[in-house]
Amino acid sequence: MNTKEINSKKLVLAYSGGLDTSYCAMHLSQDLGYEVHAVSVNTGGFSPKEIEEIRKKALALGAKSYTSIDAVQSFYEKVVKYLIFGNVLRNNTYPLSVSSERIVQAIEIARYAKQNGAAAIAHGSTGAGNDQVRFDMIFQIIAPEIEIITPIRDRQLSREEEISYLKERGVNYSWEKAKYSINQGLWGTSVGGAETLTSDQGLPSEAFPSQLKNEKSQDITLTFTKGELTAIDGVTQTPVKNIEQLEKIASSFAIGRDVHVGDTIIGIKGRVGFEAAAPLLIIKAHHLLEKHTLSKWQQFQKEQLGNFYGMLLHEGNYLDEVMRNIEAFLQDAQKNVSGHVFITLYPYRFELKGIKSEHDLMAARFGSYGEINKAWSAEDAKGFIKILSNSGKIASQINKQND
Amino acid sequence: MNTKEINSKKLVLAYSGGLDTSYCAMHLSQDLGYEVHAVSVNTGGFSPKEIEEIRKKALALGAKSYTSIDAVQSFYEKVVKYLIFGNVLRNNTYPLSVSSERIVQAIEIARYAKQNGAAAIAHGSTGAGNDQVRFDMIFQIIAPEIEIITPIRDRQLSREEEISYLKERGVNYSWEKAKYSINQGLWGTSVGGAETLTSDQGLPSEAFPSQLKNEKSQDITLTFTKGELTAIDGVTQTPVKNIEQLEKIASSFAIGRDVHVGDTIIGIKGRVGFEAAAPLLIIKAHHLLEKHTLSKWQQFQKEQLGNFYGMLLHEGNYLDEVMRNIEAFLQDAQKNVSGHVFITLYPYRFELKGIKSEHDLMAARFGSYGEINKAWSAEDAKGFIKILSNSGKIASQINKQND
Amino acid sequence: MNTKEINSKKLVLAYSGGLDTSYCAMHLSQDLGYEVHAVSVNTGGFSPKEIEEIRKKALALGAKSYTSIDAVQSFYEKVVKYLIFGNVLRNNTYPLSVSSERIVQAIEIARYAKQNGAAAIAHGSTGAGNDQVRFDMIFQIIAPEIEIITPIRDRQLSREEEISYLKERGVNYSWEKAKYSINQGLWGTSVGGAETLTSDQGLPSEAFPSQLKNEKSQDITLTFTKGELTAIDGVTQTPVKNIEQLEKIASSFAIGRDVHVGDTIIGIKGRVGFEAAAPLLIIKAHHLLEKHTLSKWQQFQKEQLGNFYGMLLHEGNYLDEVMRNIEAFLQDAQKNVSGHVFITLYPYRFELKGIKSEHDLMAARFGSYGEINKAWSAEDAKGFIKILSNSGKIASQINKQND
Amino acid sequence: MNTKEINSKKLVLAYSGGLDTSYCAMHLSQDLGYEVHAVSVNTGGFSPKEIEEIRKKALALGAKSYTSIDAVQSFYEKVVKYLIFGNVLRNNTYPLSVSSERIVQAIEIARYAKQNGAAAIAHGSTGAGNDQVRFDMIFQIIAPEIEIITPIRDRQLSREEEISYLKERGVNYSWEKAKYSINQGLWGTSVGGAETLTSDQGLPSEAFPSQLKNEKSQDITLTFTKGELTAIDGVTQTPVKNIEQLEKIASSFAIGRDVHVGDTIIGIKGRVGFEAAAPLLIIKAHHLLEKHTLSKWQQFQKEQLGNFYGMLLHEGNYLDEVMRNIEAFLQDAQKNVSGHVFITLYPYRFELKGIKSEHDLMAARFGSYGEINKAWSAEDAKGFIKILSNSGKIASQINKQND
Repeated sequence: MNTKEINSKKLVLAYSGGLDTSYCAMHLSQDLGYEVHAVSVNTGGFSPKEIEEIRKKALALGAKSYTSIDAVQSFYEKVVKYLIFGNVLRNNTYPLSVSSERIVQAIEIARYAKQNGAAAIAHGSTGAGNDQVRFDMIFQIIAPEIEIITPIRDRQLSREEEISYLKERGVNYSWEKAKYSINQGLWGTSVGGAETLTSDQGLPSEAFPSQLKNEKSQDITLTFTKGELTAIDGVTQTPVKNIEQLEKIASSFAIGRDVHVGDTIIGIKGRVGFEAAAPLLIIKAHHLLEKHTLSKWQQFQKEQLGNFYGMLLHEGNYLDEVMRNIEAFLQDAQKNVSGHVFITLYPYRFELKGIKSEHDLMAARFGSYGEINKAWSAEDAKGFIKILSNSGKIASQINKQND
Repeated sequence: MNTKEINSKKLVLAYSGGLDTSYCAMHLSQDLGYEVHAVSVNTGGFSPKEIEEIRKKALALGAKSYTSIDAVQSFYEKVVKYLIFGNVLRNNTYPLSVSSERIVQAIEIARYAKQNGAAAIAHGSTGAGNDQVRFDMIFQIIAPEIEIITPIRDRQLSREEEISYLKERGVNYSWEKAKYSINQGLWGTSVGGAETLTSDQGLPSEAFPSQLKNEKSQDITLTFTKGELTAIDGVTQTPVKNIEQLEKIASSFAIGRDVHVGDTIIGIKGRVGFEAAAPLLIIKAHHLLEKHTLSKWQQFQKEQLGNFYGMLLHEGNYLDEVMRNIEAFLQDAQKNVSGHVFITLYPYRFELKGIKSEHDLMAARFGSYGEINKAWSAEDAKGFIKILSNSGKIASQINKQND
Repeated sequence: MNTKEINSKKLVLAYSGGLDTSYCAMHLSQDLGYEVHAVSVNTGGFSPKEIEEIRKKALALGAKSYTSIDAVQSFYEKVVKYLIFGNVLRNNTYPLSVSSERIVQAIEIARYAKQNGAAAIAHGSTGAGNDQVRFDMIFQIIAPEIEIITPIRDRQLSREEEISYLKERGVNYSWEKAKYSINQGLWGTSVGGAETLTSDQGLPSEAFPSQLKNEKSQDITLTFTKGELTAIDGVTQTPVKNIEQLEKIASSFAIGRDVHVGDTIIGIKGRVGFEAAAPLLIIKAHHLLEKHTLSKWQQFQKEQLGNFYGMLLHEGNYLDEVMRNIEAFLQDAQKNVSGHVFITLYPYRFELKGIKSEHDLMAARFGSYGEINKAWSAEDAKGFIKILSNSGKIASQINKQND
Repeated sequence: MNTKEINSKKLVLAYSGGLDTSYCAMHLSQDLGYEVHAVSVNTGGFSPKEIEEIRKKALALGAKSYTSIDAVQSFYEKVVKYLIFGNVLRNNTYPLSVSSERIVQAIEIARYAKQNGAAAIAHGSTGAGNDQVRFDMIFQIIAPEIEIITPIRDRQLSREEEISYLKERGVNYSWEKAKYSINQGLWGTSVGGAETLTSDQGLPSEAFPSQLKNEKSQDITLTFTKGELTAIDGVTQTPVKNIEQLEKIASSFAIGRDVHVGDTIIGIKGRVGFEAAAPLLIIKAHHLLEKHTLSKWQQFQKEQLGNFYGMLLHEGNYLDEVMRNIEAFLQDAQKNVSGHVFITLYPYRFELKGIKSEHDLMAARFGSYGEINKAWSAEDAKGFIKILSNSGKIASQINKQND
């Protein structure tokens, strides 16, 4: 990577347009005298119009420049692809919607800072969550020479204090707190609210960004090529476009909502709601296709490695070399994961009907489960079972376990 | 175990009342001269009335005696309990409804045969499926001295041949083949039909034994004590009773239907439909409770061991000593898995609302995810992340990975 | 546990008699005004004479009391037993000699402090190693209300500064630094020196505490009962006595020396020499006995769980509940691990000759590997292999892999 | 692959020159009228002179042709390389010397048979061992259309019967049974004898093919490049040549002898002696280099995958696609496994002194284990441990585990 000479007052701010990072923009430029370069990394959540608004806000708050990095494709290539290959659902539930975005955002910001000779990177995370870990770790590993500045974590200001700080300096945006905090990206939307701070309450329907618009069912066909989603209903597009389109279709059925309960990196339990229609459909469809096209042992190992990959990704360990090794395994395992998956969408749920694939190992001319067949005889089966019983028979005899 | 002296013509037949084992009953007694003792093992599927009908049939077909062994409680204690502790869903889908019953049926039959001095055990499995393996393996291990006789596997008769054999001998039951073959027990019902022999077709609604009877939603509370389901909506009963009652409630919502695709023991892929409302609700509720009450590493190991336990059980390896060792792990891990799980049932689906437990690790006075807290400072968090980054920082520096 | 009311100046010091903790004893009592209660926990390294010397030193340095806690048996019961059951060698090499002791020492000290109403615990670890993590973690978990004080870590004094501090206050012990730092306990001795700070140098023979005294070989028989070492050469003693005696015998052959390279908890790589004759003999002998008495899948799971247990123990996570669950598994797996193991000791090495056990699964009347036998026929074997080949045959056919 | 039209009497015989396959050669050609094409696959055990003798014997016994396939390089590329990458020692002991050869031999023979239009393949395995499984499985998968003929397994003849059969037909080779049966190849030599049929006896020194020739120690340096052995003492050769040379050097020290106890594919326990000086040195040296160059999690996953790879290879499952996926992981993990390993050879044993590598993660300018350093402060360490303790602290508080 080309890196510029470091300018000691140049600072790159991971900027989202929200209250916390807006406070940072002003505080860092006006109080601390930094030359603030605001950067946001779009991993799927921002429209051009929203980016334009963020830009204006950043410059108004004192940033010297604003850059929006489009990282949707890079997010897909670096992370989402492998989450699909690995059928990764954290704790069997959560497609890692936010955690996985943070990784790619941190990488893009660290590279931007390095290439532009920044002496510091600032971000708006608090000291109580996972994001600070994901950001700090990746910044420190990729750019150990760059200082990390985290005003929100360090100063522990309340929303009210931040708002009045900004007001005093003539900034009058409306910072009303939404009832539910929403974080949207290519791989799903997280939803936090009063309920997710309890253990016993689910999220109400209105907490979710999408609302049910379809009462009737709809059939849909997803086509995978070597594990990647290459077509919907026979129309071929890039995987990223397909994910976006599928999200539109399926979220109108209010599919893919749930609450994830998990262990944070800092050792406490946390709960977060999410809506991830496309991710859930894709992972469940991909998984079904694998059940038809992979061997038992491939599935066994993929399950373990996929879970482990999800755990390390969630905890910000994306740069550990083991992640590359697991990706090599997962990629290699996709050779034959090609075919169509037939799904019916219903309000709030979906049904996987079946698959069609040239690599379907069930399609054998060979023998069908439970049906009389010619590939082996009764005697073969008896010999098989007899020898399969050897170890148990010996153990039972020696240790008199079943007398 | 007390075992009788062996009587060389005494044969125990695993009898279900179906065409295959009815053929066996008559063939073994009339053609081969065995003294046939028909036995059926009830693991939850049979009513007293059905058992009475099976008894009559068995005796009419030439069996010298008929015994119905009630193994529901034993099935729960030996297997179901651990499937719950381990959150076992084969291939992330199937609660192992049939496979797990077969194990307990085989054990009961082997013991019965041993205790009654039988020289042979007969069962009606074909040579093309998993059940032959489960039965033969367990018979050979528990009772290696007893011969196994499998007329259906050996003679490969068609249904028509079996029916005309019986008709010729004056047996005129109606053997009409049901469109869907159903196998019902405490831990769910399996459903096979023309569709499950294909890869691309789902089962139609009418294939399932239960039908949707409730259009409105219903709240329900499941209470677990050390991992076992001890109460529904505050009413305490035995776990077995609770499972049976929950199945009644939830199947009226047509919950818990799916099609499982998996690797058979004999190396081919197979597909089977199932309806298992209670098993799915219990496992998902239990799993949620564990997310709140177990450590990250307990969940990590439980996931691996649970999957492995399910694989070996499915393949008939229940008697391998490793299964006892895993059960010891799973049992020990349930110490704190006590509390209430709040669920809403809807037609075809359910939502887990949340939990309440004295052992809820999220209920700490300690700090909430993402909230400002007093248990650690910003400096603590920075130190944590700094040292967490050490290995990545070193690797990056040494191998210049991120330049 | 009974706990006293807290006395705000009462401090428990983990005292070893070395320079660092001697500095602490004086500094904490004289400079900071604490009522210092020095405690050392004997996990196998100290003779009564050494303890007496430590006591005198502690009192001379200003400690108000000194207590030596004998934790050898507790160390065995809590940790060593499971390291044997799990055949735990970290990175396939290191019996976790020091790491495992620290855990038990920390637990004993935390309990002592709690029971005696101490307001603080002090220890002498630096900020650069694993021990600080092990101590702090266990103190914080068991006694979160007690303050942890670490003068060496905080003040980063050099040996010279510490020595002159003590000299100025009239303490004139000889603190000459040994060429090799030695740490001795029931489960082995660690050795650090200039060489272990490099990557390319081994330790010279004189670095190790024991020296070769036997040139001739010696046969020895170890007897295990449910996984525990219950006799040497037919003489029954407690497992602790047997470990101590075996160490004496085998260290005279200079057996069990090696250098361990591993990942520290703080993310850097570290190297440490060790001498652990008895641990290596016991683990290798126990492992051999298990190869004869456990099923393939028991060994498979034990290998994974044993490695994981060693990793968490090494990292100070002994109190995580998953450790209790794994112990339950390991204990359950020892039911049949009883028998004799025959070993020959040579200078610097040993040979496992074989075993004798009632539970030896090789001793079957049943069939011997590679020998003609009556337990199954050629046809059985062919049937077995035919069906075992099914999945590969189908995959090859469908995917034309081998054309 | 180009395949010829099948000639119904053409048979390929896996021929070793031993008694069993000599019997087969004659029996198949003379009694059964096959056109026998004898083939031996050299995976490292045969000299040109030995091959010439085998050729003569084969033709004399009635074979129409004899072919020696040189598969040493292919054996290395297909299998040995990955056994090194994975540090594979079955049951922590056995480098899979024989099992791994059989796989490659079977593949070469199946291809030869296919390419030459053979209707049958014959091999000399009995029905009591692992080799029949390895051979049959691979033949059936690669060439399902070719019949497998196994006279020794089917006819269960004694050595005496075979010898007199051959004598009667004028064949008078000396078939004296060696006291120890030896199987030699690139990756080690297996040794079977009366002792390995017991559980309690080791092999005497004379059972091993190599004898101690060096009483003095010798230093040796192994150089690895991306995990492959590319030089010995600074002299670069192909990995295969290096393995061969290292075996010569190290076997003169009688290094690498042991007895493996393991589970056969057919469910019984078996024991086999082996001498594998080069394999053990290479694996242990490679493993040490990995400890310095891989992350903790890479090592964790490699240990599990390496063991699993060894298990499936041992059981003849080499063609399962999961093996390719694991190879992709292992290959990817070797990127930085380059450097020198310093070893001292002694009679019967060796010592790993250390390593030198550009990728040594211990060589950081960064901080040394246990030494005061500048990469982090005491406060950082305390914050790290504080947050690391969170989950344990909460669990302890909630569940009152440590009161």
